[in-house]
Amino acid sequence: MPDFDDVRAAAARIAGIAHRTPLVRSRTIDERAGASVTLKCEQFQRMGAFKFRGAYNCLAQLSPAERGAGVVAYSSGNHAQGVALAAQLLEIPATIVMPRDAPASKLAATRGYGAEVVLYERSEENRAVIAQGIAQERGATIVPPYDDERIVAGAGTAVLEMFEDAGPFDVVVAPVGGGGLLSGSALAAHGIDARTAVWGVEPEAGNDVQQSLARGERVVIDVPDTIADGLQTQSPGEITFGVLRAHAAGIATVTDDELVATMRVLFERCKLVVEPSGAAALAAVLHEKIPVRGKRVGVVLSGGNVDRVRYAALMA
Amino acid sequence: MPDFDDVRAAAARIAGIAHRTPLVRSRTIDERAGASVTLKCEQFQRMGAFKFRGAYNCLAQLSPAERGAGVVAYSSGNHAQGVALAAQLLEIPATIVMPRDAPASKLAATRGYGAEVVLYERSEENRAVIAQGIAQERGATIVPPYDDERIVAGAGTAVLEMFEDAGPFDVVVAPVGGGGLLSGSALAAHGIDARTAVWGVEPEAGNDVQQSLARGERVVIDVPDTIADGLQTQSPGEITFGVLRAHAAGIATVTDDELVATMRVLFERCKLVVEPSGAAALAAVLHEKIPVRGKRVGVVLSGGNVDRVRYAALMA
Repeated sequence: MPDFDDVRAAAARIAGIAHRTPLVRSRTIDERAGASVTLKCEQFQRMGAFKFRGAYNCLAQLSPAERGAGVVAYSSGNHAQGVALAAQLLEIPATIVMPRDAPASKLAATRGYGAEVVLYERSEENRAVIAQGIAQERGATIVPPYDDERIVAGAGTAVLEMFEDAGPFDVVVAPVGGGGLLSGSALAAHGIDARTAVWGVEPEAGNDVQQSLARGERVVIDVPDTIADGLQTQSPGEITFGVLRAHAAGIATVTDDELVATMRVLFERCKLVVEPSGAAALAAVLHEKIPVRGKRVGVVLSGGNVDRVRYAALMA
Repeated sequence: MPDFDDVRAAAARIAGIAHRTPLVRSRTIDERAGASVTLKCEQFQRMGAFKFRGAYNCLAQLSPAERGAGVVAYSSGNHAQGVALAAQLLEIPATIVMPRDAPASKLAATRGYGAEVVLYERSEENRAVIAQGIAQERGATIVPPYDDERIVAGAGTAVLEMFEDAGPFDVVVAPVGGGGLLSGSALAAHGIDARTAVWGVEPEAGNDVQQSLARGERVVIDVPDTIADGLQTQSPGEITFGVLRAHAAGIATVTDDELVATMRVLFERCKLVVEPSGAAALAAVLHEKIPVRGKRVGVVLSGGNVDRVRYAALMA
C-alpha cells in the first residue's frame, strides 16, 4: 500500500521535470459554488494531463537492466502519451498498444514522443494479452495505468502541490476512473491534514467506484457510455480500492450534460480548455453533488486532451 | 507623451487589483518559431483582456469630484467591460454606449459589472456624439479606448511584468489596433532595455498603423473586414502614433486564416483560449512575418473574450 512518504518521494523525483501546474481562482465559480474554489490545472501538465506524473515516477525507478529492456503500456488515452513522454525523457524504449481506431491526433502524439505504436483491432483482440506478449518476448516492463504504487504516488503530487501552494483545504475533489489520481490525492491530502474530506467524481453512466465502496468489494461493470473517455473504467484497481476504502469521504456522480455545462463555464469564465473527464470534479461541485458550501475546496482539473473538432461540437 | 515612469506608476496603482497574469512556454511553439517564445496570458486578466489595466489606471486617477460625476465610454468590445469593472471596483457610476446588435453576452457582462448600458443604432447614430452628450449632461468623464496617457501607461504594465518575470527579451510582439497596448508595451520594453525590438501586428485587411508609420502621418482607412474584432480600428491615435514613431521596430500583418491557425495551435498544444485579436502577435511569429529566429521573444496574448459558438465554428 503506498503512503504519504511515497508521494513526497515522487514529488522529489519529478521536480524540475513535470510542470508545477498553476492554480486558478474565479469569482464566478466561487459564487456559483458558494465556496472558495481553487482549480489545479493539470491540463497545463506536460502532454496535457496529470498522467505524466505517475508515468515518470514509475519509469524513473526502473533498474538499468529494466530500462534497457524497455516498457510496454496499453491505452487509447492519456496514459499512452504519459508513458511515451516519460520514456523519451529517460531514454527508455517504449511500446504502446493502441486500438487501430484511436484518434489520429493521439497516435501521432504518442509516436511524436518516440514510442513504437502497436495497433490492434478493438473488437477482435485483447490489448492486455498483446502487451503481455510483447513484454515477455522482450523482457520489457508493463506500466499499468493506475493499479501500481508508483503510479498512485506520482498522481498524488498534484494535490501535494496544491496544498503547498494554497492549502489548507476542507474538501479536495478529483475525478475517479481506475482510482490512481483519487487515491494519490487522498494520500497527499491526509498526509498533510487528516481532516480534509476527499471526494471522487465518476460518470453517472458508470459508478463502479461508488458501488464498490458501498458494497465493500470491487464491483465490475460494463464499459460506461459517457463522453468522459478517461473515466470509462469498469472497476477500481486493487491497490487504489484499498486506499479509497481507507481515505475517501465519498463518490459523487455527474451526467454528460453536467460535464458539458462545466466545460462551457471553464471556457467562458476562465478561458480554460479541459477535456470531459477533466471537468468532472468541478461539475460535481457546481451541481451540488458534494457538500462544499462555505468551505475551502481544492478541485483537480485533470487534463485537457480533447480533439479540437469534438470540443467545438461540445461548445456549439 | 507618456513615458516609462508612467508605466511604473501604473503598475503600482494596479498592484493587487489587476491579476499579474501567468507566462506560458511551449516546446512546440519554440520549435515552430525557431526561437525562445514566452506568452504573456492576458486572457487570464480580470474581465478576460488587457483592457482592464488601462481602464483601472485611468479611473484611479480621477479626482473625487470627477468620480462622483461618473464616467462614460463607448465600445462594443473589451474596453466596455474594462471600464465597467474598474468603475465598479472604484465605486464610480459608469455609462457604456454600446450598439444595439452587440452580442448578448457582452451586454450582459457589461451590465453584470454594474454599468448602465445605453444602446444605439449602429447604422443611424454616432456613438461618440451620444457619449459626448451624456458626458456633457452629467459632467461625466469620457474614458477613451486608447488615445490617452493613462490608458497607454496601464496597458504597458503587461509587458513590464513580462520583463520582470522572465526578461530580457530581444523582441517583443503585441497586437495593434488603436495602439494603446503596443505603445505601452514599447515604453515598458525600452524603459528596461533600449535594444529590444518592439513589433506590432495588425490584420492584413486593415494595416492603418503600418501605412501611417510608412507615410509618417496618421492614415485613416475603412473599417477592416477581419475576424479580429478588437483590431478593427481605422487609424492610430495621436498619442499612440507619437510613441510608435519613436519606438516601434515595425508592423507586421496577418490574415484571418493565420489567426485561426494560431488559435488552433494554442488550443491543441497549450490548452489556451484566445480571441482572434489575441492571437495576432503569435500568428505573426509563427508565420515568419517578424525576424525572430534564435531570439528571445516575448509575445502578448491580449485577450480571450470570444463567443463560445463563434469559437466552436473557428475550431471545427
